[in-house]
Amino acid sequence: MPAAQFRKPSLQLLNEIKKITGNSGWKHPQDEPSYFEDPRGRFKGKGCLIVTPQSTQKVSEITQLCNQERVAIIPYSGGTGVVAGQLSIESENVIIMSLEKMNNIRHISADDSILVAEAGCILENVHNIANEHGMNFPLNMASKGSCRVGGNLATNAGGIQVLRHGNARDLCLGIEAVLPDGMILNELAPLQKNNTGYDVRHLMIGSEGTLGIITAAALKLKPLDPETGTAFIGISSPEDGLKVLREIKRHLGDSISAFELMSGFGVQLVSADFPSLKNPLSKLSEWNLLLEASGSFGVDNLMQKAIMACLEKDLIVDAVIAKSQSQRESLWGLRENIPDSNRRAGAFCSSDTSVIVSKVDVFIKDTISAISAIDPDIRINSYGHLGDGNIHHNVFPPNGVSKTEFLSNNPEIIATVRMAINEVTHKHGGSISAEHGIGRLKVDDAELYLADAKKLMIKRIKSVIDPNNIMNPGALVV
Amino acid sequence: MPAAQFRKPSLQLLNEIKKITGNSGWKHPQDEPSYFEDPRGRFKGKGCLIVTPQSTQKVSEITQLCNQERVAIIPYSGGTGVVAGQLSIESENVIIMSLEKMNNIRHISADDSILVAEAGCILENVHNIANEHGMNFPLNMASKGSCRVGGNLATNAGGIQVLRHGNARDLCLGIEAVLPDGMILNELAPLQKNNTGYDVRHLMIGSEGTLGIITAAALKLKPLDPETGTAFIGISSPEDGLKVLREIKRHLGDSISAFELMSGFGVQLVSADFPSLKNPLSKLSEWNLLLEASGSFGVDNLMQKAIMACLEKDLIVDAVIAKSQSQRESLWGLRENIPDSNRRAGAFCSSDTSVIVSKVDVFIKDTISAISAIDPDIRINSYGHLGDGNIHHNVFPPNGVSKTEFLSNNPEIIATVRMAINEVTHKHGGSISAEHGIGRLKVDDAELYLADAKKLMIKRIKSVIDPNNIMNPGALVV
Repeated sequence: MPAAQFRKPSLQLLNEIKKITGNSGWKHPQDEPSYFEDPRGRFKGKGCLIVTPQSTQKVSEITQLCNQERVAIIPYSGGTGVVAGQLSIESENVIIMSLEKMNNIRHISADDSILVAEAGCILENVHNIANEHGMNFPLNMASKGSCRVGGNLATNAGGIQVLRHGNARDLCLGIEAVLPDGMILNELAPLQKNNTGYDVRHLMIGSEGTLGIITAAALKLKPLDPETGTAFIGISSPEDGLKVLREIKRHLGDSISAFELMSGFGVQLVSADFPSLKNPLSKLSEWNLLLEASGSFGVDNLMQKAIMACLEKDLIVDAVIAKSQSQRESLWGLRENIPDSNRRAGAFCSSDTSVIVSKVDVFIKDTISAISAIDPDIRINSYGHLGDGNIHHNVFPPNGVSKTEFLSNNPEIIATVRMAINEVTHKHGGSISAEHGIGRLKVDDAELYLADAKKLMIKRIKSVIDPNNIMNPGALVV
Repeated sequence: MPAAQFRKPSLQLLNEIKKITGNSGWKHPQDEPSYFEDPRGRFKGKGCLIVTPQSTQKVSEITQLCNQERVAIIPYSGGTGVVAGQLSIESENVIIMSLEKMNNIRHISADDSILVAEAGCILENVHNIANEHGMNFPLNMASKGSCRVGGNLATNAGGIQVLRHGNARDLCLGIEAVLPDGMILNELAPLQKNNTGYDVRHLMIGSEGTLGIITAAALKLKPLDPETGTAFIGISSPEDGLKVLREIKRHLGDSISAFELMSGFGVQLVSADFPSLKNPLSKLSEWNLLLEASGSFGVDNLMQKAIMACLEKDLIVDAVIAKSQSQRESLWGLRENIPDSNRRAGAFCSSDTSVIVSKVDVFIKDTISAISAIDPDIRINSYGHLGDGNIHHNVFPPNGVSKTEFLSNNPEIIATVRMAINEVTHKHGGSISAEHGIGRLKVDDAELYLADAKKLMIKRIKSVIDPNNIMNPGALVV
């Protein structure tokens, strides 16, 4: 595969692209700084033209032109990715292609439990439309108000309901995509069974825009759950968290839709930032769980019994069960605002790793030890999706030291901490990117930790599907 | 991609391979006719050596040698595939590689709901071992006593529980495979979340041995269901079948594990062949459903209520609910013996198509019309997985005419009927191979019906992962 050359688009190419989109379909980069911002403020993107094509046909025409001139395209969705997959850091000689104008729901059928959405649909809008039809689209995450379906699929987004409903790929039955040469891949038919050749849908999902641009998707809907139970539980250790998970599974089985871990430190951070969000337990617990179960009538009652059983077995310290929707939202507020509070509190490292669920407790202990060995005063907020084995470690300067001051005195600290977490993850057979993807932030880590055979397959597939390396060059492929 | 050349293996290569496997690890083709048999008796396979390597390392060494000499390998699993994916029809210059000796369960963890099986494990053995650990591996089909895990995954097998638990790919968290150049792809870690590059696991699953040989897999286990309800239901039409499905979903939701359609003709065929398997209803119904729901205690009761609601709404003619395990097995016997009885009754065409579930009724009507238009006396047994949109049409000579006689008088009839079914499927946006795959039987159909962009992606991926075209040449790739 040739290295990305970032050829400067000719004036003629830019004019032809503008003719395709019409005047309302392109923007000057200098007028639109938001397309070049990193949600965590670490990177700055570049580009020479932003295009917002209104149809799959136009995406195809623009892509074909760019491929002929070997000009790079950066697919842009909701801009919420945290690994710089949507930001051209290296060169401004790229076309930013945002699918924000392709935001139609093409079809919805409660009978077939299917909703066909264009890539530019905002996730929360998909939730609302599904709800209006008495159904539920269970992919869910804190960024739901701004992330879009195309990006959700391109990055195989995870979020807070993976335990019960799977990742984005598990909730997608069909896709439409434009390939690097402009061909339209129409695999939208939402068939439950289709064994006709390689599964190109699963190949495109999670490819982070490096093999083409997903333009629409047939999404799986689920029935609305008649009842939901939510509980906030104090525990002594992640090890007890796993014991609680085992006990609760016996009572609630597949109904468990979220099983989140929060450190007491994390709860304090959020409470300080959002005075309405208080620790709901009588004492601050060193570790906490947010448990949610959804299903048919009786789930709430089953959850209470499960929690009583955990209390009797001394697995938990204390627990509260939400009595109303607003209480439920407050409990979730403690969880969903953690990333924001981490940022405000000066986190200089935010990991996204996963291990086998039964190893999470040892993994957390080993990771905290490894980070503390670098500097015992560093503060750590470990939280995440315990039920999926996906833990985020956020790392802060010692108490009373500002982020700026700490980083300028310890210029290697970000890399050192990141590599310490990667090493522990690798030792436990885990993944260095559980749900965020590789993007541009983690290409070096992927080079280091991915097995040779997988790296070779990735390179080979990229070289033959995108031989001119025009699709999101610099992202994912190591 | 170079066309398959079927180079004759040198004596030296054969000797080196035999040295790797040892004397107990290879067989003469002339002594082992079963490796060359087609379950439906339409094809005859060929080969010059059968090897049964005992480890992934040995599979890798043999593959590497074959790749160097550009000698083709035909991966062989349980031999139950019905599209000749495991049979070299064109040339005897191939090595048959059976993984039957790699039949260890490497690891099982009820806590992580994971079982790591080598590719040669027989599916029913996996069921039994999971059961011994209080768990369930829900991939299930009539051939469970002889099919093997490697073939299940290579063909993305479906079967009778897809509705609740998904296809083989949905039940696999990790794979180990040997690539065509002998490299070992180790992606066995059973992580719930892992977004590190293209999903090569999903690419290998369903690739029918054309991109490498799956040697082991991390399979997802599910909890054993405390209760199962099974009912046999007489209905007037597939259209009513869909109405029953909608009604029953309201009561049983995700607990529905099987929703099978059987024609009255099919029930008669099985009853004639297996005198112990009788139509359980007071009158033979033109169409029948086999409904099964599994879940927590109370499922059986919910099912009874659901069936009562269907009776009250006049959606069903009659129904019986199994009162014991032996009654349940008898009801399933009527369904599971259909393929066998079709064969005995002289079926000359057996289709495997799927459409969107809500279109199944129209699809069945249109297909029967199209076949009857060819010859109104032809008999048709339509059955299959109504809840997945996956219907099998089996087609027989007119009453009193033998298969041999009919086919010799109508030499084009097999192709004509197959194409009529394909055309109706294509018109309804369906798949010409829902669960059986492409193999060698359907390469021409795939050439005709797969979209250009998908065909191109398949060809390109094959060309770059298996540039010498040694892995199962002639299968799948059009």
